[in-house]
Amino acid sequence: MRYFDDFEIGEKIVTKSRSITEADIVLFSAFSGDWHQLHTDIEFAKKGPFGERIAHGFLVLAVASGLMPLGEMAVLAFYGMDKVRFVGPTKIGDTIHVEMEVLEKQEKEKGGVVSFKSSIRNQKEEDVAILTMKVALHKK
Amino acid sequence: MRYFDDFEIGEKIVTKSRSITEADIVLFSAFSGDWHQLHTDIEFAKKGPFGERIAHGFLVLAVASGLMPLGEMAVLAFYGMDKVRFVGPTKIGDTIHVEMEVLEKQEKEKGGVVSFKSSIRNQKEEDVAILTMKVALHKK
Amino acid sequence: MRYFDDFEIGEKIVTKSRSITEADIVLFSAFSGDWHQLHTDIEFAKKGPFGERIAHGFLVLAVASGLMPLGEMAVLAFYGMDKVRFVGPTKIGDTIHVEMEVLEKQEKEKGGVVSFKSSIRNQKEEDVAILTMKVALHKK
Amino acid sequence: MRYFDDFEIGEKIVTKSRSITEADIVLFSAFSGDWHQLHTDIEFAKKGPFGERIAHGFLVLAVASGLMPLGEMAVLAFYGMDKVRFVGPTKIGDTIHVEMEVLEKQEKEKGGVVSFKSSIRNQKEEDVAILTMKVALHKK
Amino acid sequence: MRYFDDFEIGEKIVTKSRSITEADIVLFSAFSGDWHQLHTDIEFAKKGPFGERIAHGFLVLAVASGLMPLGEMAVLAFYGMDKVRFVGPTKIGDTIHVEMEVLEKQEKEKGGVVSFKSSIRNQKEEDVAILTMKVALHKK
Amino acid sequence: MRYFDDFEIGEKIVTKSRSITEADIVLFSAFSGDWHQLHTDIEFAKKGPFGERIAHGFLVLAVASGLMPLGEMAVLAFYGMDKVRFVGPTKIGDTIHVEMEVLEKQEKEKGGVVSFKSSIRNQKEEDVAILTMKVALHKK
Repeated sequence: MRYFDDFEIGEKIVTKSRSITEADIVLFSAFSGDWHQLHTDIEFAKKGPFGERIAHGFLVLAVASGLMPLGEMAVLAFYGMDKVRFVGPTKIGDTIHVEMEVLEKQEKEKGGVVSFKSSIRNQKEEDVAILTMKVALHKK
Repeated sequence: MRYFDDFEIGEKIVTKSRSITEADIVLFSAFSGDWHQLHTDIEFAKKGPFGERIAHGFLVLAVASGLMPLGEMAVLAFYGMDKVRFVGPTKIGDTIHVEMEVLEKQEKEKGGVVSFKSSIRNQKEEDVAILTMKVALHKK
Repeated sequence: MRYFDDFEIGEKIVTKSRSITEADIVLFSAFSGDWHQLHTDIEFAKKGPFGERIAHGFLVLAVASGLMPLGEMAVLAFYGMDKVRFVGPTKIGDTIHVEMEVLEKQEKEKGGVVSFKSSIRNQKEEDVAILTMKVALHKK
Repeated sequence: MRYFDDFEIGEKIVTKSRSITEADIVLFSAFSGDWHQLHTDIEFAKKGPFGERIAHGFLVLAVASGLMPLGEMAVLAFYGMDKVRFVGPTKIGDTIHVEMEVLEKQEKEKGGVVSFKSSIRNQKEEDVAILTMKVALHKK
Repeated sequence: MRYFDDFEIGEKIVTKSRSITEADIVLFSAFSGDWHQLHTDIEFAKKGPFGERIAHGFLVLAVASGLMPLGEMAVLAFYGMDKVRFVGPTKIGDTIHVEMEVLEKQEKEKGGVVSFKSSIRNQKEEDVAILTMKVALHKK
Repeated sequence: MRYFDDFEIGEKIVTKSRSITEADIVLFSAFSGDWHQLHTDIEFAKKGPFGERIAHGFLVLAVASGLMPLGEMAVLAFYGMDKVRFVGPTKIGDTIHVEMEVLEKQEKEKGGVVSFKSSIRNQKEEDVAILTMKVALHKK
């Protein structure tokens, strides 16, 4: 288990990868209730900017959250995110992972907040989303 | 269908509501792969700061994305988010909705980006998350 | 395997039962995309005619279709339904089964259509839906 | 929100579309418990009338119910359906929408019932199911 | 309903079949929380012994349990399994069924345990798993 | 990543825990197709030996497989299991974890098989299942 004290500025983490399938897009549309035709209508998507259905931005973030090693951190709470930008599409069959770097540490009364500069990248090493992820952790 | 041109600074939108159930937490843990014990272990959660399991931050965002009327907008892409902060827990049985206000409009070569100051609020009108949501829309 | 020839007018079938849980309502809302607040918003439902969330009519039909012994029939196609009426609510924790009676047999060029007068009933033996179910079966 | 009073005989509604994927067929088999080999066994389906797996009739209806704008109607209850007929198969990759026309309005003590003649159609504008959908709505 | 008394040593059962889809692998990864890259990462699996993603061993067993006619047995409890061996991969698009033979019957104070020598086989009649399945049944 | 060489006879692993909810039982019934009334019918289960619905044996094994740290092992394949016995019920709201001990190591041409004596235990430290889990791992 890693605590607030255990992280060092500049430390890097590269996660495992997960492929995004058509089933993932159906499941996320279902769970979120966001059935926008960009994600769920083959005919509509054919005529759109990508020529095919793409994954929801929030799907990409949700999968990234499962790839991040939060289970090995003494998480107090998910504090927030800064400047989340979706910079490329995630298509069916793409495989994504997350590259994180400790950017900042802020001590708080209870625990502290670690900020991770994070890139969600596909199998071609293209960024699909960039964000600063802020997690509140227990101190030792 | 609403286009970039149709939104006015200061315009407000209040969405419908959805209750967050134990099943939602199981489904989101499953989909995301984030089985942190804060969300999925009754015994662990009893001893934690909230005394019970709470919803994932990304679950709250995913549900909010389905509540937002994106299906009625001429969405080009999900541009990103600024300053997302989780300011209160969402517990099993809570019912959340989103209150949005048009904060800013930025014209781009293709379409434009509308920024919505957004509060995700529960049935007691408490904020559970606040964020600026940025959506790229087609022009008419 | 039972064929068109094997059914007799007046024959009765009583299926097993399945309880309808909160999870079923969440799953069906997700799958269908019908998140009407009657089914998914605790606060909204409190003020409605039933005082609580109720199952979707199509959820009740979908569960009934799984309870019916279609797997033991030489099904050619689902032909259709006549006069489907939802006559009572299905609440979380209710347990439903189907009672079917062969009403009519119509021979067709390929196989034949068997019509089952069907009642979907809860644990108090109250009807929640009544319908005539029409299934096209192979001949021997 | 549209009430009983707001609908006029002859009024038409065309819904958005949703593609039916292999994942949808797996999810509906799972939810309903109807694992008939027509829907779930590639080898069995190869030898059947369509040469491949097809969607369940109730899957098509469930998806149609989510496409219909029930969320914008002041729904009292799902009253029922008349003469539902499955007139063509829905295959993996097909994209369906619903075309509805107000056929009849019946005033009741509490609210009233609006009957919609409905066609569920695929991307080739072929009918896959036709039915009369009857929804009980609040009066203003 | 079949009881302990109704089974005879040497009796054989061949179940229906079910195809294993990509959606099944995503759903089982999600439910179990076992997102091992053998099952969920296209790029990782390409370099592995099978050249593609394969189904989880427990997915194969879970599907087999649904194919077995347990619903027609007067089950007291699932007693256990002996010598479970995974002898071949199950790939996306494979169709599996179970062949069972009554190997042994052990009378107990309450009911008795029937042991089924079981082979889970694919559409090429290759064994993918072999096991002895032990089910406790009621006596008549 | 841990290889065949890294495990020592007698080494112990205690996993994290996960609570088993009603939603888990619905999801596993759905996925597996095993809708036995022991698991899914409140009224039936009331009259049974446990007085309430219990989790499927295979559900317990599937959840255990996700709790085991397989993701940190250089898994070649899931080899099999010996003597699996379900020794106690898992009820809705129970929280299970796995305690594993390395029992045996068998070198093979490609890699080797590590056998883990495993107990799946609930929050009261009662065994619910015991088994020997056999995993084929890469050598370094």
